[in-house]
Amino acid sequence: MTNNTHDTVSAHEAVYFIFGATGDLARRKLFPALYSLYREGKLGERFAIVGLARRPRTNAQFRDDVYEAIKEFCRYKPSDTESWNAFVEHFTYQSLDINNVEGFRELKVHTEELEAKYSIQGNRLFYLALAPELFGHVSRSLRDGGMLESKGWRHLVIEKPFGYDYASAEKLNQEISEVFREDEVYRIDHYLGKEMVQNIEVIRFANAFFEPLWNKNHIANIQITLAETVGVEDRGAYYNKSGALRDMVQNHLMQMLTMVAMEPPSRLDAEDIRDEKVKVLRSIRKMNSREEVVSNVIRGQYAPGSMKGKELKGYRDEDSVDSASSTETFFAATLYVDNFRWAGVPFYVRTGKRLPVKSTEIVIEFKNVPNNVLFANKQNVLPNLLVIRVNPMEGIYIKLNAKKPGNDMSIQTVATEYCQSCLIGINTPEAYERLIFDAARGDHTYFTRWDELAVAWKLVDPIAAAWKEDSSDLQFYAAGSWGPDKVEQMLAEDGYHWWPVNGQDEDNVIWISNTGK
Amino acid sequence: MTNNTHDTVSAHEAVYFIFGATGDLARRKLFPALYSLYREGKLGERFAIVGLARRPRTNAQFRDDVYEAIKEFCRYKPSDTESWNAFVEHFTYQSLDINNVEGFRELKVHTEELEAKYSIQGNRLFYLALAPELFGHVSRSLRDGGMLESKGWRHLVIEKPFGYDYASAEKLNQEISEVFREDEVYRIDHYLGKEMVQNIEVIRFANAFFEPLWNKNHIANIQITLAETVGVEDRGAYYNKSGALRDMVQNHLMQMLTMVAMEPPSRLDAEDIRDEKVKVLRSIRKMNSREEVVSNVIRGQYAPGSMKGKELKGYRDEDSVDSASSTETFFAATLYVDNFRWAGVPFYVRTGKRLPVKSTEIVIEFKNVPNNVLFANKQNVLPNLLVIRVNPMEGIYIKLNAKKPGNDMSIQTVATEYCQSCLIGINTPEAYERLIFDAARGDHTYFTRWDELAVAWKLVDPIAAAWKEDSSDLQFYAAGSWGPDKVEQMLAEDGYHWWPVNGQDEDNVIWISNTGK
Repeated sequence: MTNNTHDTVSAHEAVYFIFGATGDLARRKLFPALYSLYREGKLGERFAIVGLARRPRTNAQFRDDVYEAIKEFCRYKPSDTESWNAFVEHFTYQSLDINNVEGFRELKVHTEELEAKYSIQGNRLFYLALAPELFGHVSRSLRDGGMLESKGWRHLVIEKPFGYDYASAEKLNQEISEVFREDEVYRIDHYLGKEMVQNIEVIRFANAFFEPLWNKNHIANIQITLAETVGVEDRGAYYNKSGALRDMVQNHLMQMLTMVAMEPPSRLDAEDIRDEKVKVLRSIRKMNSREEVVSNVIRGQYAPGSMKGKELKGYRDEDSVDSASSTETFFAATLYVDNFRWAGVPFYVRTGKRLPVKSTEIVIEFKNVPNNVLFANKQNVLPNLLVIRVNPMEGIYIKLNAKKPGNDMSIQTVATEYCQSCLIGINTPEAYERLIFDAARGDHTYFTRWDELAVAWKLVDPIAAAWKEDSSDLQFYAAGSWGPDKVEQMLAEDGYHWWPVNGQDEDNVIWISNTGK
Repeated sequence: MTNNTHDTVSAHEAVYFIFGATGDLARRKLFPALYSLYREGKLGERFAIVGLARRPRTNAQFRDDVYEAIKEFCRYKPSDTESWNAFVEHFTYQSLDINNVEGFRELKVHTEELEAKYSIQGNRLFYLALAPELFGHVSRSLRDGGMLESKGWRHLVIEKPFGYDYASAEKLNQEISEVFREDEVYRIDHYLGKEMVQNIEVIRFANAFFEPLWNKNHIANIQITLAETVGVEDRGAYYNKSGALRDMVQNHLMQMLTMVAMEPPSRLDAEDIRDEKVKVLRSIRKMNSREEVVSNVIRGQYAPGSMKGKELKGYRDEDSVDSASSTETFFAATLYVDNFRWAGVPFYVRTGKRLPVKSTEIVIEFKNVPNNVLFANKQNVLPNLLVIRVNPMEGIYIKLNAKKPGNDMSIQTVATEYCQSCLIGINTPEAYERLIFDAARGDHTYFTRWDELAVAWKLVDPIAAAWKEDSSDLQFYAAGSWGPDKVEQMLAEDGYHWWPVNGQDEDNVIWISNTGK
């Protein structure tokens, strides 16, 4: 089951505590991630997984849940009965009221039995797949129940949303920090677990080709798109309070922006990289007034529309949504990173629900050749692009200008492409696999540090505050469209336009790839 | 038959005179090129083609020859009888002794009849598919026979080899220039007619991406390979006198080098571009002594060997070759362009017969990331490459470093590729089509000017002279190998190596393309 290739260093032996073990995240992401790690030898054999939730459940029932989850959601399918049993016997379940310290004392006894059984030296990973209001309670109960008095390490893994604004985030952080040190806390932003987001570093720092061009002298603008086709589904209760700003921008979009914009760190260590990311966030120009917000940010909400011939409800008509809601399901903004590298380069970001395609892409648009020079003198020469495709397609392409085959010097745009997700037989780890593995190994690189989070909230709070004053700037867009019309204008005013993302037509570009595009 | 896309400007109406009309070049290249031009509407309907050679031939016989040639070699196949007859009736034949002025007077009468028939205003294109010794004779006979006394233009198209060394080239040029002005002479180097060689300009000057990197600060070295799998075949008599130096280096390799290395011209006009190319040739460091030649140049000759299991003769064993011949069938050299842009950047060039694959490629190797910085600190990071594939594959690829999918920060080399020749249904013009069309239109861009040729000979002559002194530096290589061992050493001494060309294995690079590589 184990192998010794470079990237299968085993996590230390540990007990993994899954709080919220009967919930959706556990079922869809965490159990499958643990099984994949196991199948690749990354958990070793000396581990135990304890499922925790309020609901009563026997070990056998819980193991059946795990089986069903893996069968449905894991990239590895459950193996033959014998091997499967060898895996699933590591799973036990305990019903737990998180406010009842006595339950945690029982958990302690159970844990020590497991640690004895598997010769585990007290390493404990607490994964809180819970509502954030509960993080403080759980932390205190863990402490008061004696769960933190082991010889090994204790890592706390928590999920977004980490607060609702700076004040609530700070309070939450305060509660956690009474129990855990910052270096014991792993705040998940699953976008940081994505292959191509992690690839940004390599693309930037392992290619001499890009480094000299990666600045305001050569880059015209950067476009980050995080488009979803889904609507609010049954998340209305949460989403109505959060909106795109808190659900996508404060975390995922900001994190992708920092990976693109950061200075090269002094080392590839987690703290060095996170130092650089905080610096980028601090350099993002703040919006201090409602006027600044309204002129730089567009918020939208999907109205009834259609996609591929299917009628779609408007946001306000969704079952779980208030019919007068002014929650934004779409966000677009022009951001500026006011440092020497990026002064004057607009970072256009957009995210939304019910957009025409599901796609996360980062487009680096290079400055074009001067307009009156050589070919550009007579022909319409398009600028060069480097595109990092994050999701669901993974890959890189570079758009270049080349001669159109034939007798005249006509120019056409061609795409030189590397499509990673097109590789047959490739089976890349899911974000959650990487992140659980990293948290167990103690690698903080792809987790959000408190100061990153704090600065990100401070950027987002003034926008939320401006919006709260008055909702007159809320724009409606038809479900299945690319958002409010103003979103194109925003770039057009600077002389740019949004480049098509995967799924939009690009008739004038010659593509060669095995995707058949 | 005609269409009006941007690249189908019709050549002016003209009479095309094919000297050597019964020869191989006419059959394989010229007739097919003329038919393709016709089919694409680029000849219009007001043209005539006169085949000329010593051998007696009726018009009907000649037209049959043309038919057979096109059936075998043209990318368009002869259309139905009616359309075919409409085309082939433009062809007539006249038997001609090139030293007999009387024959040229007859030709004049015939030509004027054709011009009257097709309402052609005296434009005459003379294509000399003849041995170069005859260029002077033909030129004089054309003049003396009154063939140049027309109202329209007169373009003389001539084939390599243009001389054997500077002295003979100058003599030949002198003879031609007594009759034709420089701007009436079109010296063919068919590599300049190739799609991807013409594309070099566009790649360089229509992509802001490359321009800042195109110099000694960012480029480590440039590798130009022109590899043939064929041996000398039945060209022994010619080849034994010429060798790779005169057959490939003085013209094709030098021309590709100038396209890569030239400064941006002030305009895209033929004279401006050729001015820049001459400047590059003048900046190439001359080799002034036998020592310099021997230390910078490798000459080789193929010995018996094998390719794909097939036994191959050595050059000296070929039927048409002297068994003590020291003619080089392989040439490799390190060249330096001593100007501000390229100082210190080696241009490695190689060409040879009986090499393992047929491939012409230009590899631009960029300087690597510094060795002790970030990823390169721990891992073997390969430099970025831009590769222009000239022949037989046509395309561009860029080799980059990216993250290897998985949990660790391992680096892999990937190729982002645009493979033009992989495009289904693409049907690019042959070099000869472009060049005949350009010569008829009066566009000199892809023809060699006399001063280019003169400088190229002056670069090549000292090498030939050094070799003549003594043949002790001639290295033998097995037919089917990549040339003498010293060829790898030549780069290894500078810390580089030849990058694999199309057809060699590249196990460590991830390729995605529909070529199945």
